[in-house]
Amino acid sequence: MIVEMKKGAAREELDDVIARAKKYGMEVQLNIGTDKTVVAILGSNTGQIPSDMFGVLPGVERVTRIMRPYKLASREFKAQDTIVDIEGIKVGGDRIVVMAGPCAVETPEQLKAAARAVKDSGARILRGGAFKPRSSPFSFQGLKTAGLELLADVKAEYGMPVVTEVVDSHEVRLVGKYADILQVGSRSMQNFTLLTEVGKSKSPVVLKRGFACTVTEWLTAADYLLAEGNSQVILCERGIRTFEDSTRFSLDISSIPVIKKASHLPIIVDPSHAAGHYSLVPALAKAAIAAGADGLLIEVHPNPKEALVDGLQSLTPSDFARLMKEIDQIARVMGRSL
Amino acid sequence: MIVEMKKGAAREELDDVIARAKKYGMEVQLNIGTDKTVVAILGSNTGQIPSDMFGVLPGVERVTRIMRPYKLASREFKAQDTIVDIEGIKVGGDRIVVMAGPCAVETPEQLKAAARAVKDSGARILRGGAFKPRSSPFSFQGLKTAGLELLADVKAEYGMPVVTEVVDSHEVRLVGKYADILQVGSRSMQNFTLLTEVGKSKSPVVLKRGFACTVTEWLTAADYLLAEGNSQVILCERGIRTFEDSTRFSLDISSIPVIKKASHLPIIVDPSHAAGHYSLVPALAKAAIAAGADGLLIEVHPNPKEALVDGLQSLTPSDFARLMKEIDQIARVMGRSL
Amino acid sequence: MIVEMKKGAAREELDDVIARAKKYGMEVQLNIGTDKTVVAILGSNTGQIPSDMFGVLPGVERVTRIMRPYKLASREFKAQDTIVDIEGIKVGGDRIVVMAGPCAVETPEQLKAAARAVKDSGARILRGGAFKPRSSPFSFQGLKTAGLELLADVKAEYGMPVVTEVVDSHEVRLVGKYADILQVGSRSMQNFTLLTEVGKSKSPVVLKRGFACTVTEWLTAADYLLAEGNSQVILCERGIRTFEDSTRFSLDISSIPVIKKASHLPIIVDPSHAAGHYSLVPALAKAAIAAGADGLLIEVHPNPKEALVDGLQSLTPSDFARLMKEIDQIARVMGRSL
Amino acid sequence: MIVEMKKGAAREELDDVIARAKKYGMEVQLNIGTDKTVVAILGSNTGQIPSDMFGVLPGVERVTRIMRPYKLASREFKAQDTIVDIEGIKVGGDRIVVMAGPCAVETPEQLKAAARAVKDSGARILRGGAFKPRSSPFSFQGLKTAGLELLADVKAEYGMPVVTEVVDSHEVRLVGKYADILQVGSRSMQNFTLLTEVGKSKSPVVLKRGFACTVTEWLTAADYLLAEGNSQVILCERGIRTFEDSTRFSLDISSIPVIKKASHLPIIVDPSHAAGHYSLVPALAKAAIAAGADGLLIEVHPNPKEALVDGLQSLTPSDFARLMKEIDQIARVMGRSL
Repeated sequence: MIVEMKKGAAREELDDVIARAKKYGMEVQLNIGTDKTVVAILGSNTGQIPSDMFGVLPGVERVTRIMRPYKLASREFKAQDTIVDIEGIKVGGDRIVVMAGPCAVETPEQLKAAARAVKDSGARILRGGAFKPRSSPFSFQGLKTAGLELLADVKAEYGMPVVTEVVDSHEVRLVGKYADILQVGSRSMQNFTLLTEVGKSKSPVVLKRGFACTVTEWLTAADYLLAEGNSQVILCERGIRTFEDSTRFSLDISSIPVIKKASHLPIIVDPSHAAGHYSLVPALAKAAIAAGADGLLIEVHPNPKEALVDGLQSLTPSDFARLMKEIDQIARVMGRSL
Repeated sequence: MIVEMKKGAAREELDDVIARAKKYGMEVQLNIGTDKTVVAILGSNTGQIPSDMFGVLPGVERVTRIMRPYKLASREFKAQDTIVDIEGIKVGGDRIVVMAGPCAVETPEQLKAAARAVKDSGARILRGGAFKPRSSPFSFQGLKTAGLELLADVKAEYGMPVVTEVVDSHEVRLVGKYADILQVGSRSMQNFTLLTEVGKSKSPVVLKRGFACTVTEWLTAADYLLAEGNSQVILCERGIRTFEDSTRFSLDISSIPVIKKASHLPIIVDPSHAAGHYSLVPALAKAAIAAGADGLLIEVHPNPKEALVDGLQSLTPSDFARLMKEIDQIARVMGRSL
Repeated sequence: MIVEMKKGAAREELDDVIARAKKYGMEVQLNIGTDKTVVAILGSNTGQIPSDMFGVLPGVERVTRIMRPYKLASREFKAQDTIVDIEGIKVGGDRIVVMAGPCAVETPEQLKAAARAVKDSGARILRGGAFKPRSSPFSFQGLKTAGLELLADVKAEYGMPVVTEVVDSHEVRLVGKYADILQVGSRSMQNFTLLTEVGKSKSPVVLKRGFACTVTEWLTAADYLLAEGNSQVILCERGIRTFEDSTRFSLDISSIPVIKKASHLPIIVDPSHAAGHYSLVPALAKAAIAAGADGLLIEVHPNPKEALVDGLQSLTPSDFARLMKEIDQIARVMGRSL
Repeated sequence: MIVEMKKGAAREELDDVIARAKKYGMEVQLNIGTDKTVVAILGSNTGQIPSDMFGVLPGVERVTRIMRPYKLASREFKAQDTIVDIEGIKVGGDRIVVMAGPCAVETPEQLKAAARAVKDSGARILRGGAFKPRSSPFSFQGLKTAGLELLADVKAEYGMPVVTEVVDSHEVRLVGKYADILQVGSRSMQNFTLLTEVGKSKSPVVLKRGFACTVTEWLTAADYLLAEGNSQVILCERGIRTFEDSTRFSLDISSIPVIKKASHLPIIVDPSHAAGHYSLVPALAKAAIAAGADGLLIEVHPNPKEALVDGLQSLTPSDFARLMKEIDQIARVMGRSL
């Protein structure tokens, strides 16, 4: 942490800064310039110390962090890539993992048709929402437990592990009984109670990025999971909120190489929620793999025209089949495969 | 809803759009231009119908909403201002309501000193956090139930109603036993399970704006509370996330007149979280009242240098006293008073 | 500047950093931690040195700036407030300066009616655009030189100094012949050729903030004017681009206290372009004065319904008259007057 | 254009809207609902008519545009892809075009070394800046005319067409004498005087997206070039400004498929300015091609450590050579080639 004193700060004010650093076991190094004094605060866990602690002291102009606030998710903490294993399917390894299926579980027929289609095209994990957080109370909220049961049935029939969202900290156990991977949605990324419970569950988890959260905040949220001893964490980029209005969100493609550098955790991409329109999904899916993503989370509906939720961003089975062939080729260029 | 057909869309594609509208009880009016056909979908609740329903149909170029997705929070639904009454203190009426106190409840001494100071300066409601959602798992998380008990003690001693945050849907009852106003924090604005429970509680509630949510999404979240029959809703603007980095968030001052026009709900402003630095708080607080806000939520700490959370944005009691005098004068210009 | 070396960086890599700093006359202080080495680069003009200079060196993890890139516009460079004097009207002093008039100069009648109305209500400077930068080539582009002549005529008749925009570096002299204050528009804030010419002209200038530029970039753009010896610089906040779509731009009200702290230059606010709708202008105008702004730039049209440009954000003369009375009262609370 | 009347608007107010539409030759269709009346304004050029024209009328609640404000750049105006031809090199066709070279022209040796390196690796156009718009007046501003002469020399020696930036409308002719492609930079995208002059020049042009401009504004800016009869327009995505701070800008990868759908113009991507750090450039470059971009604009410096401008985002010749091999493979998957 770098503490910059005001021009003309008093010696006692500087001494207060030094005393506070020492009190918390940190080292101090002074850089006394002609204009102003700059204090470097050193120590192994300065990333976890709030910068306000120095910012509030009289005579302090500004405090700049050097260490990141996340720790367990960082590559400095763990150098080699984490590989998450879901019944033998490895996320973060050589093979690209595609999770596909409808936004919401609607009927047995719909879910089976979706499962069959995505499996045939090479998807290895089935996605489907039973609890749907919706921005309006007047929208369809999901089939809830009945939806979970449908997922379990279809999983048994097709032998595909299932990923589904959990929205309430008290439902982690319930959802975990049915799902192979728990999904923490974008609007829940900073629901710390939920993160703690999902961390305790030790289930594999897809942690979607909050649509207005920085990469740093995202990795700090991952620390909540990791701190509970759950190392089965898959990050999922799904678009951030910007001023651009031609897409629902702006897919932050750069977050892929940024995460690969900063963290050991695998990262997948959800092009469907980012784009908001099916016609844009293939381009974003291919770009994600070319940028180094470890997998994809894609919405596929047997009949998007009749979807209850987000039909506009769902691919048809035939569009999905075509896309998977292209994904496979891009994966091979990247030294990987589907 | 306005459905714009693609140039050269087939007659059957147009018929599909019309059929779907009629199926859901909506009226249709066609505008057949030389270039393209535009279909107006009319009805009393088109705001609650997902635009995707038409966007997914073949031949459709684009769908534009005209009705807002929120309903109960709109001024069209209820023309006259809602006034929230907390033990006789009216939010939304002629008097400006200031809620002040520390970010986190720390000790009995700290809370009492804060309560005494803010009451002496004219604040009528005491704020203080017992459950603190923190971005890192390694930060202080609040005193929890012990904090609630301290709030109740201090409330009894000073006769000030208390506002405090609830973060978990299963703690609404617990927090409601101690608090006069439940606060839904910025990170929870789209935690729909929590909103539903707070709605059911019928407690007065401060609904903070999600830092990356639009005014429309904010009012739609308020619909979750109102739909459960809880009409005691106070909106709180606390800054949105933008590219500007000289403040922690950018206070969206325009949201005040926008809300006054679009909704009947009262709106207060939290300048402390927006600014992130005590030196900017007075200017923002005064601006909020001049823009028409009904109240303020301000962090005051008896000794910011020793605060466990957010000390940098807390005012000292003497700075707060000075600010309250200025607020009173601005309020009078606005035809109101403290 | 703080240069953070990679964990395990070689001694030679560190030596390269030190050598480069010394070559440019800067001092170096080493902080050798257990994990990584941090180098503080000190000197009086490190703000003007690109951080890339160190970032490109092998073994460097990251470079953090401490000094701001602007210099002449900073309060550290000049402590007391700059007061800009336009024919005796002082911007930045005790009196609030209101500049008002139509977005575009259209006809002699329109401009005279506007001038009369705004003067009667207490505005002291007349605004009006002759050169209009428009986002589409098919929109009305302004009367150009004929508009400048109209401004000069009306100025002579009503005795009000005139502010108008200059968009081309080669027209600075031409516009300067007619205008008392040159306006650099939001889209031109980083047109450095234009800034240099306006700097050379020594005319008073209103420098509007680029709608996607930070406060730091804005003050750095002001340095272009100041570096040419033009000290008559008035900053103008006019809204920034964010995700919020209920207003045309989001007025960054916090920029007022931020600028007052960081710079000696006066700052005024344009609520009309920020809001994009006349009904929101009064609230923003009052908020700006309460936040400490030195003046306002407001669009007033004698007949907004017939305006060729931006009629929707223009006040009528009677709305403006009403607003000016409120502005006067807020100004008095702030210890100032109209 | 859809004009929504206020609830309870008077018949005369509605008549005013209709009269105004008819006055400008537009058709009107009324949708009289129980709650409110909605007026559809139809006509072939409603995209070029300001929505304010109706928004200012009494009784109008809101106006929603349906037609886009751009016209000549739209795919509706011209269905087949535009291919820009630069001395036989076709941008927008089957072959991916890579433009590479240093950010700024510094010395003959530097430019020659860069040209040799990028040509050897398969780049077909040389980039290099002679006029450098810099955010601070104290930064290196480019070699200007001497830089243009160096570009011409190196072009003659290596037989590569040259792209370079023009920043002043009065230098279009000068720069055009040396350059094969004029570049309009991000900060100049809405410098309409410059656009008009570049349009008149008929030179091939790379139009970079303003870092805070929407796709719609970008295509509307392209209309300025096209309206002057210059059809040789290449769009260039280079990152937009968002809240994310781990990269200099956020590459808007979605803009590629969005542009391909909305416009006939070719689009290339500049991953260097978007990322701001060389280590991220390869991932973004590959993603761009996988998303359907027609080419790339990449910074390559023979010795980034000694670059005067933006060394941190420049690739070394060997990194560039490696990247080009990968680009070629991705291009082949896309049915294209280098």
